Amino acid sequence: MTATITPLHSNRPPSLDPMLQLTAAAMNGVNAIILDRMQSEVALIPELAGHLIAGGGKRMRPMLTLACAALLDYPGTRHHKLAAAVEFIHTATLLHDDVVDGSSMRRGKRAANLIWGNPASVLVGDFLFSRSFELMVEDGSLKVLKILSHASAVIAEGEVEQLTAQRQVGTDEDKYLRIIQAKTAALFAAACRIAPVVAEAGEEAELALESYGKNLGIAFQLVDDAIDYTSDAETMGKGLGDDFRDGKMTLPVILAYARGSSEDRSFWRSAIGGDRVADEDLAHAIVLMRDTGALADTLERARQYARRALDALAPFPAGKAKAALTEAVEFAVARAY
Amino acid sequence: MTATITPLHSNRPPSLDPMLQLTAAAMNGVNAIILDRMQSEVALIPELAGHLIAGGGKRMRPMLTLACAALLDYPGTRHHKLAAAVEFIHTATLLHDDVVDGSSMRRGKRAANLIWGNPASVLVGDFLFSRSFELMVEDGSLKVLKILSHASAVIAEGEVEQLTAQRQVGTDEDKYLRIIQAKTAALFAAACRIAPVVAEAGEEAELALESYGKNLGIAFQLVDDAIDYTSDAETMGKGLGDDFRDGKMTLPVILAYARGSSEDRSFWRSAIGGDRVADEDLAHAIVLMRDTGALADTLERARQYARRALDALAPFPAGKAKAALTEAVEFAVARAY
Repeated sequence: MTATITPLHSNRPPSLDPMLQLTAAAMNGVNAIILDRMQSEVALIPELAGHLIAGGGKRMRPMLTLACAALLDYPGTRHHKLAAAVEFIHTATLLHDDVVDGSSMRRGKRAANLIWGNPASVLVGDFLFSRSFELMVEDGSLKVLKILSHASAVIAEGEVEQLTAQRQVGTDEDKYLRIIQAKTAALFAAACRIAPVVAEAGEEAELALESYGKNLGIAFQLVDDAIDYTSDAETMGKGLGDDFRDGKMTLPVILAYARGSSEDRSFWRSAIGGDRVADEDLAHAIVLMRDTGALADTLERARQYARRALDALAPFPAGKAKAALTEAVEFAVARAY
Repeated sequence: MTATITPLHSNRPPSLDPMLQLTAAAMNGVNAIILDRMQSEVALIPELAGHLIAGGGKRMRPMLTLACAALLDYPGTRHHKLAAAVEFIHTATLLHDDVVDGSSMRRGKRAANLIWGNPASVLVGDFLFSRSFELMVEDGSLKVLKILSHASAVIAEGEVEQLTAQRQVGTDEDKYLRIIQAKTAALFAAACRIAPVVAEAGEEAELALESYGKNLGIAFQLVDDAIDYTSDAETMGKGLGDDFRDGKMTLPVILAYARGSSEDRSFWRSAIGGDRVADEDLAHAIVLMRDTGALADTLERARQYARRALDALAPFPAGKAKAALTEAVEFAVARAY
């Protein structure tokens, strides 16, 4: 049995607004910590980090920590520092990802690696990563340190596995799911789990919110991977078809390749191999994805994980926090429409 | 008042052998942890990490943790895991350094970034860094976590500052010292300090061994920076003159530039700017360094820091461990002769 996604707000599309409102006051505290702790006497560090951090981004992960704490009626502020630590880990991985992918855009701006070079992006990422652990140590919870150090190792493993799958047309759905669980869902899950840890809400609440975060993260990434073939650069904040040109084996490609005619499969081998990456090839890829139902089914998979995320929320009492966390799930899967 | 460096073994050159012997048994424990914990189901991770870790290196930093624990007669084994964590941090920084510098050799072998590419080196570095924190969390000392997370942030700051000083001929000795204290001495200091923490030897022992490690680290880096202009590739395990071609403002360059004629200074501006980096330019740079006493004085600075390291050891009782730590300092400054 799974919950059904039945929006409570049928007169408007689902959005992150309720979660933004729920967490606005606490997020001011988190942002103050982020701005304070990204400082360094080495001026290039706040300059580069600030470009990415001030440059927008939804603050999705720290917002989840705050919303989960609200769900548990946690009255303290310990989680502000930890939410900032989560955002630093995320920012560090973005800086390193953009080096790995040779990205040219991030959050609608030029990627830091293009402005300051790969070396600076690698090293400032290392700084933010170290700083995140300093923040956790200041809080002093070994349980939180365990959750986030493990999540960080899992993220790196996922990124390495993604690298080994790149341009490998034989990558299957299992491997893809393992990769996105590691590179994306692990930090969503950790961000949610640390709230019941500081709230001392017990093991059951920890597991439930970890499951919520994990399944939301998977749904989020599945939709992101579909959007890379359906949206425009302005909506995404990065270039349409980046994954295609990078030869990333995301689920839309995996399904389209598996279901394709031998002629289609030959096209995919060339495209993923990097030999057919012109705009007309991308357009053809999108046609194949639509014709085979690969895009629709990627989104259907996302809805399955979204339902699991909602199931995980079921035991918690109704209220603003639960409604906001619920609508965040609906938003995650509605973005592609 | 400073101690004088009076070798107790005047019939042979100083070496790391006494420290290697002192720590051999414990290092087996550390190596077992290193090999065990660099594993991952993502095969590229142990493959790439193993290339660097199994590929030699002196294990200088974990050896210092072990030798300091021996100095304090610490009877336990907690420090094995922490020494492995220190080596993982060091390995992660080497992988990232080689990406930043575009290195072609490391420890006498092809650098990992040349074999597996920059993306893999960045991400496997991230994995080892995360894993080092997992090891520390397993040990459970917040004090150790604080020391090593802070050291990691300082290292990254030093690396970024080094990057901003690259090809900047106006870099002065103060900035250079700040950079090497951060990028090199901070981890030496932390590796030494965590031994008295686990041995519960008290604040005074912590500060003394931190000072030992810090000053040894500075001496070590000063000599390394001289060796880059005096040694051959076989001795160094990396290319002669790499710093020169990279436009690194190390102390030999800083002193030679400061003391040079206007013609010499013009040469240095071109060389550090990247316009005169042929073999004959390197040969000319070395002549200028010798003529101005820049190399000799870099080594004299190293000896000053070595004396401070020995001073820091003074309060500890005589014995094999103290003798080994003393000879390690003598070795550090004797390598260039």
